[in-house]
Amino acid sequence: MEEKRCFNMESKIMTKRVVIVGGGFAGFNAAKMLGNRHDVEVTLVDRKNYHLFQPLLYQVAVAALGEGDIAAPLRNMLGGYENITVFKGLVQNVDMAAKTIQTDFGEIGYDYLVLTCGVQHHYFGNNGWEEFAPGLKNLAQATEIRRRVMEAFEAAERTDNLVERKKLLTFVIVGGGPTGVELAGSIGEMSRFTLSKIYKHIDPKLTRIFIVEAAGRILGSFSPELSSRATRELEKLGVQVWTSSAVSDVDANGVQIGRERIEAATVLWAAGVQAQEIGKHIGVETDRTGRIIVEPDLSIPGHPEVFVGGDQACVIGQKGTPLPGMAPVALQEGRYIGKTILDDLKGRPRKPFRYRDKGQMATIGRNKAIVEIGNLKFDGAAAWFTWILVHIYYLTGFKHRVFVLMQWAWSYFTLAHGARLIVNKEWRFYGGSKQKGNEE
Amino acid sequence: MEEKRCFNMESKIMTKRVVIVGGGFAGFNAAKMLGNRHDVEVTLVDRKNYHLFQPLLYQVAVAALGEGDIAAPLRNMLGGYENITVFKGLVQNVDMAAKTIQTDFGEIGYDYLVLTCGVQHHYFGNNGWEEFAPGLKNLAQATEIRRRVMEAFEAAERTDNLVERKKLLTFVIVGGGPTGVELAGSIGEMSRFTLSKIYKHIDPKLTRIFIVEAAGRILGSFSPELSSRATRELEKLGVQVWTSSAVSDVDANGVQIGRERIEAATVLWAAGVQAQEIGKHIGVETDRTGRIIVEPDLSIPGHPEVFVGGDQACVIGQKGTPLPGMAPVALQEGRYIGKTILDDLKGRPRKPFRYRDKGQMATIGRNKAIVEIGNLKFDGAAAWFTWILVHIYYLTGFKHRVFVLMQWAWSYFTLAHGARLIVNKEWRFYGGSKQKGNEE
Repeated sequence: MEEKRCFNMESKIMTKRVVIVGGGFAGFNAAKMLGNRHDVEVTLVDRKNYHLFQPLLYQVAVAALGEGDIAAPLRNMLGGYENITVFKGLVQNVDMAAKTIQTDFGEIGYDYLVLTCGVQHHYFGNNGWEEFAPGLKNLAQATEIRRRVMEAFEAAERTDNLVERKKLLTFVIVGGGPTGVELAGSIGEMSRFTLSKIYKHIDPKLTRIFIVEAAGRILGSFSPELSSRATRELEKLGVQVWTSSAVSDVDANGVQIGRERIEAATVLWAAGVQAQEIGKHIGVETDRTGRIIVEPDLSIPGHPEVFVGGDQACVIGQKGTPLPGMAPVALQEGRYIGKTILDDLKGRPRKPFRYRDKGQMATIGRNKAIVEIGNLKFDGAAAWFTWILVHIYYLTGFKHRVFVLMQWAWSYFTLAHGARLIVNKEWRFYGGSKQKGNEE
Repeated sequence: MEEKRCFNMESKIMTKRVVIVGGGFAGFNAAKMLGNRHDVEVTLVDRKNYHLFQPLLYQVAVAALGEGDIAAPLRNMLGGYENITVFKGLVQNVDMAAKTIQTDFGEIGYDYLVLTCGVQHHYFGNNGWEEFAPGLKNLAQATEIRRRVMEAFEAAERTDNLVERKKLLTFVIVGGGPTGVELAGSIGEMSRFTLSKIYKHIDPKLTRIFIVEAAGRILGSFSPELSSRATRELEKLGVQVWTSSAVSDVDANGVQIGRERIEAATVLWAAGVQAQEIGKHIGVETDRTGRIIVEPDLSIPGHPEVFVGGDQACVIGQKGTPLPGMAPVALQEGRYIGKTILDDLKGRPRKPFRYRDKGQMATIGRNKAIVEIGNLKFDGAAAWFTWILVHIYYLTGFKHRVFVLMQWAWSYFTLAHGARLIVNKEWRFYGGSKQKGNEE
């Protein structure tokens, strides 16, 4: 057994200990802001060993990009800073009175704490649905979705039972936000254009794809106009958009929407999210989805030394509504938190956080995207190229941008997705699984 | 439930049904040889959905390359041929009298059968060792090895128990063939050059790596001279080479070699292999390792319509000894089988298979490799560049060669490995695992 370690080292004179929980956009950017400063000593704890470019995770799920294209070890990205230590571990509790966090490898003391634990999928009290409808928040889930989607086409090719085949070629995406739309669009595009030549017994063009959305329209954070344009574009790719349709049950064979039912071998979850539970443990005020309600300087009321950022924070924007859980918001919050800690050390007063709205965008397929920046709204090829450029620009530190750009250019012209590998979870041959023969 | 399908379709006049089991170098090349020929209808069955460039699999295990760089879906590579159908499925039995194979999705009839099922790791009757010492034959295993190696460094960084840390920084590779040497060399290089700057509490240069080999020397298929040069190069990377050392036990904490013991958190298996069991089922003569003994035309004695190729075949070479289980052997056998079937259809007599020996090579690290082509033997940088060129040349059909070449060039100059991601096997958050909090 590993001995528990006590990290509650004496703080050196004038050196403040900053502990960051979570290495997503908020935590990672807060850490970078504090990198190579001699007056702070940073410890970042994440249960994953990588920083993930979440906006492109769906591309791993649909086999357009490999894992290494959108993720890189936090240790590689931050380990080069003298004053930043990275641990892969799980934070179990926070003691704000004692100023310590408890992890599965010991206790760590802090002068400043930055909580950026993010969100997880939420099945509205039906956690059993997860088995049948995986969400898309990390690489393991993206790999699982890729495996399910590709296995469905393989199984459809093997069977000649037409009812079974129809079920295998039916994909339901629950939730019509950007992730749901991007997943549906990619599967539509893949089945219509890429897969048709390589299957001999099935016609992948017959693939049915559904977006099931409880609200009155998809992409609710966009204007109704762009939302309806996106719907039309999805329909061109064969995606059936069901709005005002709340899922009432999910099982191994499909989804139930009130009295209606869709038989589907593959159901993917892109609906609700809920903040990680740490907010409950420490007894602070949270909103309906578990996000911690913070002061204008992103600190917890009464605890100016504890900041919350990213999807875990409920931050009221300039428009008076909570800021959405998006990468640009988390990125700006992380930078702000890092800067505010540096300001504190210099004895400067804190300024409130102000979100600079860079707009929002969603992609549906090749040459199909929507972009909304303030009152500027556009779609089609121009929106798609904007989307590509913005994502290439922000995709730093992973692979060299030029690699990803070339790969996309290649896919664009050839319509070929290179990464459609089914990697089984079971690696053992002897005694790993009951079905061992089938698992390699 | 999927209904079982009967693929025993009537063979069209003059069209021969060729069934290939396995999509490795032998099966894949046999299929390609028969592609777009109107007189044969080819069905290839593999339990994986991808063709793998096995000689570089260790690079995925040590995070130097991503999965998509060395593997591509069989369906993409062969689906373009009009006359080739690919199924992902498991072959359960062969009935040579009825000329059918039984799969988990139905029965398939054949006029020609090509068995290229390959080998699996063999734990000398101790299958329980697999849990503690994964082998390296497919992508799932490579991912598992990568996970174990990277997790060991992460855990070493977290603990300050020195005995525990020493165990975590000890890697034992059982078996001193090319795979064992390549794994040991890569881990040595990674720990000495790449990891040292990004860990703050451990000195990765203290990593101990052992190759434990039962025979009197490593790389037994090479000349004693090159084998000893390789040993010296390994030692420079900190690898301790233990020869004449048969492993007598493997457990969660290390390996026992007779009365000696090495405490190690990570043990990798690169020792024995054994042919897939299909040889036993069909009652044909096999050698000690289960390989099917074939005629000079690679057919099973008494069954000129059944060929065996690749690692599954025991083929006596021109030197009177069995050909080794190497990619070039499998590739040539696959092409020969395809060509022989075409010769049969043209009524031409069969020629015996002759292996054109292209030599063998193994790489130890950057600028370190050994090459042996007939009497020509060399090592060092020249051997390493030969190794790179040969592997780039043969690495077709996966990513574009130029991508892999650029990635290697990048790694060569920066010493950076980009793909050191730990992807957990468990994707579920709710109820997937007892330790659910820790698994993301």
